[in-house]
Amino acid sequence: MPNIDLSKISTRAPEDLDRDEAERLTKQRADRISELHQQLVAQKEHAVLIILQGMDASGKDGALRNVFGECAPYGLRSVAFKKPTEEEFDHDFLWRIHKEVPAQGEMVIFNRSHYEDVLIQRVHGWITEEQVDRRFDSINAFENLLRYDNNTLILKFYLHISKEQQREELMERIEEPEKQYKHNDGDWREREHWDEYRKAYEDVIARSEIPWHIIPVDQRWYRNYLMTDIVVQAMEGLNMEWPPLVTNKTWSV
Amino acid sequence: MPNIDLSKISTRAPEDLDRDEAERLTKQRADRISELHQQLVAQKEHAVLIILQGMDASGKDGALRNVFGECAPYGLRSVAFKKPTEEEFDHDFLWRIHKEVPAQGEMVIFNRSHYEDVLIQRVHGWITEEQVDRRFDSINAFENLLRYDNNTLILKFYLHISKEQQREELMERIEEPEKQYKHNDGDWREREHWDEYRKAYEDVIARSEIPWHIIPVDQRWYRNYLMTDIVVQAMEGLNMEWPPLVTNKTWSV
Repeated sequence: MPNIDLSKISTRAPEDLDRDEAERLTKQRADRISELHQQLVAQKEHAVLIILQGMDASGKDGALRNVFGECAPYGLRSVAFKKPTEEEFDHDFLWRIHKEVPAQGEMVIFNRSHYEDVLIQRVHGWITEEQVDRRFDSINAFENLLRYDNNTLILKFYLHISKEQQREELMERIEEPEKQYKHNDGDWREREHWDEYRKAYEDVIARSEIPWHIIPVDQRWYRNYLMTDIVVQAMEGLNMEWPPLVTNKTWSV
Repeated sequence: MPNIDLSKISTRAPEDLDRDEAERLTKQRADRISELHQQLVAQKEHAVLIILQGMDASGKDGALRNVFGECAPYGLRSVAFKKPTEEEFDHDFLWRIHKEVPAQGEMVIFNRSHYEDVLIQRVHGWITEEQVDRRFDSINAFENLLRYDNNTLILKFYLHISKEQQREELMERIEEPEKQYKHNDGDWREREHWDEYRKAYEDVIARSEIPWHIIPVDQRWYRNYLMTDIVVQAMEGLNMEWPPLVTNKTWSV
């Protein structure tokens, strides 16, 4: 993808979009996603991988709940990648990721992903720029493997939040009892590296073969509206059909 | 690697090599491999991946036993890749392979490997030539990931057997009680595709970024002699050292 300047991209919904209408459409689309997911499971010819990335408090959990919340729990998994375990650190960075990719007939949502290995690790200088270059090559080869060797639809979302909105969200995690479990001092420390993360994200977006969808998330309803639209369109593009009746199925088939 | 013609490469030991002397050296080297393996485990800075490929009855199990038989069982695993399970077939071809790669401080021996996915599958026409090309790209990217992102030494051995010797080995599996458990009618059927496998192997060797060692195996003692030599040299090249004493280790480190 071409180079982009995230600071030039709005984090807000267009002024002329009606929120009520948007929410009505979002609900319809979430139901449609559930139906498409059911076809994916039934047909078992495609895999779907959703990748969610964004600054802390950019609304990854909420996206999961609101966009995929209508789907049946079977054939669906979400995987949150946190700090690697000691065993994971003793392997290449894609080892723990590859284990979790969707099978055919499955949709998997990554809450953070292998992109952390060229974000947090790069921002803190834990890896050299030469390693960063190699990792981008590895990531593109890995995603192509999933795409071409296992019919995987890969949808990548960058949740684009403003620094002001992040402050509000982080404050709520201190002030509101039902959000306090999400509070983490570390998020406030990472916030000090805001510009470096922005730059690292711009590079991620520029160097990915499979394009990113940049989602303005300051208003969560707009995030849901946009993401449901993208997921429906992409999954409809798979042209899935309900499998025809097969009689005389036996265990030995 | 350059194109090769396997039919021009001898499957036998050089005439002037003394077998007794070779076996004496092999024993010494197998002990040295055990020592180097111990250092690998202790130092925990490198991973070692050994890949064994070859026609049926080319002596992969014997290589495992004779070359690595002196190593301690911890920090050592051998993985035999057979026909993929249904779950494995529902993923890309490297999914089941990646799970099994060595951690730092570990040596893993693959008895067959991801190369089967451009051998048996290609010989039988289960995949298109376009898929074959993509798989070679994926394989080279995958091996580079292990090499550069996890300090993995990758040693690949093609066990080079003659068609006559294979016939003898397969007959022994019918005639000798302690080998009958290895008999498989399918091996005789695959033997009819000998020339196609040869060609597919030549292509594997030509298109791999990390080079293959071609091991003449008609005499098993020569296989052991050559393989132990290659493993010792490669592992000595890692320049491992015994880690120095660290006092006051605690669980919280």
